[in-house]
Amino acid sequence: MPDILPADSIGLVTPQVAHFEQPLRLDCGRELGEYDLVYETYGELNSARSNAILICHALSGDAHAAGYHSMKDKKPGWWESAIGPGKPIDTNRFHVVCLNNLGGCKGSSGPNTVNPQSGKPWGPEFPIVTVRDWAESQARLADRLGIDQWAAVIGGSLGGMQVLQWAIDYPKRLRHAVVIAAAPNLTAQNIAFNEVVRQALRSDPDFHNGHYYEHGVVPSGGLKIARMLGHITYLSDDAMRAKFGRELREGKINFGFDVEFQVESYLRYQGESFVERFDANTYLLMTKALDYFDPAAAHGGNLSAALAGVEAKFFVASFTSDWRFSPTRSREIVKALLDGDKTVCYAEIEADHGHDAFLIPIPHYMDVFGSYMKQVYADIPPEVTV
Amino acid sequence: MPDILPADSIGLVTPQVAHFEQPLRLDCGRELGEYDLVYETYGELNSARSNAILICHALSGDAHAAGYHSMKDKKPGWWESAIGPGKPIDTNRFHVVCLNNLGGCKGSSGPNTVNPQSGKPWGPEFPIVTVRDWAESQARLADRLGIDQWAAVIGGSLGGMQVLQWAIDYPKRLRHAVVIAAAPNLTAQNIAFNEVVRQALRSDPDFHNGHYYEHGVVPSGGLKIARMLGHITYLSDDAMRAKFGRELREGKINFGFDVEFQVESYLRYQGESFVERFDANTYLLMTKALDYFDPAAAHGGNLSAALAGVEAKFFVASFTSDWRFSPTRSREIVKALLDGDKTVCYAEIEADHGHDAFLIPIPHYMDVFGSYMKQVYADIPPEVTV
Repeated sequence: MPDILPADSIGLVTPQVAHFEQPLRLDCGRELGEYDLVYETYGELNSARSNAILICHALSGDAHAAGYHSMKDKKPGWWESAIGPGKPIDTNRFHVVCLNNLGGCKGSSGPNTVNPQSGKPWGPEFPIVTVRDWAESQARLADRLGIDQWAAVIGGSLGGMQVLQWAIDYPKRLRHAVVIAAAPNLTAQNIAFNEVVRQALRSDPDFHNGHYYEHGVVPSGGLKIARMLGHITYLSDDAMRAKFGRELREGKINFGFDVEFQVESYLRYQGESFVERFDANTYLLMTKALDYFDPAAAHGGNLSAALAGVEAKFFVASFTSDWRFSPTRSREIVKALLDGDKTVCYAEIEADHGHDAFLIPIPHYMDVFGSYMKQVYADIPPEVTV
Repeated sequence: MPDILPADSIGLVTPQVAHFEQPLRLDCGRELGEYDLVYETYGELNSARSNAILICHALSGDAHAAGYHSMKDKKPGWWESAIGPGKPIDTNRFHVVCLNNLGGCKGSSGPNTVNPQSGKPWGPEFPIVTVRDWAESQARLADRLGIDQWAAVIGGSLGGMQVLQWAIDYPKRLRHAVVIAAAPNLTAQNIAFNEVVRQALRSDPDFHNGHYYEHGVVPSGGLKIARMLGHITYLSDDAMRAKFGRELREGKINFGFDVEFQVESYLRYQGESFVERFDANTYLLMTKALDYFDPAAAHGGNLSAALAGVEAKFFVASFTSDWRFSPTRSREIVKALLDGDKTVCYAEIEADHGHDAFLIPIPHYMDVFGSYMKQVYADIPPEVTV
């Protein structure tokens, strides 16, 4: 808990709620009659409404990307490293918007909110949403906020996939697309990890086919396994070696099933704390959105064709030790953009933190990201005084 | 089911049981008063008893390394690719011995066998065994079989760790050590995967703290997750891409939680069939044996010092796409052996099958392995006629 908020933090922030009553037709064929989107904003919107940035969150993210909700918060928002005064996404220059995606569990309509038609929690009845559905709901939020064109849409991991979708679906509504540690689709191995997670969640006896809210329980065992496994794929082998190696918690082997190695202790802690802050049905929906994302599929697998119509300038970044979405996958995006003579800047950043690197203030990463964002700022059209 | 057994198979084989009544003091401090070891042999033992080969199995292996138990068997033993007439481990030349390790679930004393003291299944009371304990029990089996010195001790993965232990603990009892797709210890990432598996098994409501036998159930959800996760680490990302890619089982997305991608179907099948053939308590013990194995630890982390006393000649092999025990880990073993001026032949085999490659008859691998085994055969001391 910070007694005094750090000077480079946006400081205290307050989530807002936008309620939508225009039905949203989803990829799965179902329709959401009405829904809420929770969002936060940081920094001032200029009078031309041209300095707005949309942040898209990853699997376990939410609308709280930066700052603190109260002086009692132990931690700031999930991307505090990159968003704030003087940071790459500089809140002295930009008006930053971050929302909790549909299907999320942090305020926006999702499995843990009430289905207005039944008066009960949606639970497993909440429709499966796709990255395309998210982009559409985000575009509606932009309409609501009076933002015709984003200075940039930015996201890491699953967030980066949303950025790609934005560039494809709304080519005129963003000037820059910032795609960090992402991929144009999941590999079989990525899908396989998701499937293990789904099995763990759905086979938990407290899952009750997704109706656990009514039973007053949560599938904590499954959530714990999901998060432990997630952490293994977020960290690199080298990062885990550097962080934990084979260090024993009590300095000796105890020949039992309690924690022996430090890495076990870390994973158990991560798993347990996740149980308190995340929803299993949302986790399931997020893994499905990941699995399904594949903009090239509609073009016979040709990503260049999928990206042929984009107009945004791109910044693509990857991290050398990321084995979840390796640099190879980012280079596929870069190549497809170059095929179509798009403007793209690519940074492959030396980092041993694995996929998690995108959330970490690695100096070289922050420098490159910050430089690009200066370009984004320079590209804001001059305000015309009438 | 083969109507006629393949000509290059050892054919029908019969497991045997060796009962031991001399207590075995284990690393964990406990003692096994008596125990059984189930083993199989293939090929004739020569009169000098000098052409014997010990095969050490990996995590889910057993004594049935080659051949068929009956004409009705759908599959041969787990290393049929390498063991048989004319194969690298040529049963026309060698007398091959393979046993189910202590703590296993395929006949040798383990959690699913009866504790002679209580008359009930051992279950979670079966002591935690180490790779060193296994080598000692295997040495006792060698004594029983009248084999003073193995022509070679051979193993892949966890089996390769046992080979290292043999070379360290019984330097005069093996002429050759064949260590395939192994590592001198687990990395933090390896331990982390094991810990996820343990959590999955132990949090299964049917686990009953390991006493599931008495409840007439098995922790099938946990076993399924364990095996699915195992398979992800046994295959390489590339192998999964080549085998499954993003292929959909029904050619289209169904927006549900049934199988959609082929890779999900494969993993679920692997997981389900494993439930029928493996024991959860044994799986737990195996992961612990893996975690604990670290011969360098007793020498301040110096593997060269740990291997200083070995007398066997070594063949070490790794596979380029193995990310569970990568070539880097095998090279650590090779380097430590070279530090001590040991004789070592190292093959880094180009293969995109991942860790599983060690079980697959990849032509180049079989060639190199076979060539080395000719050397092992040539090194058998001439039989002295008195």
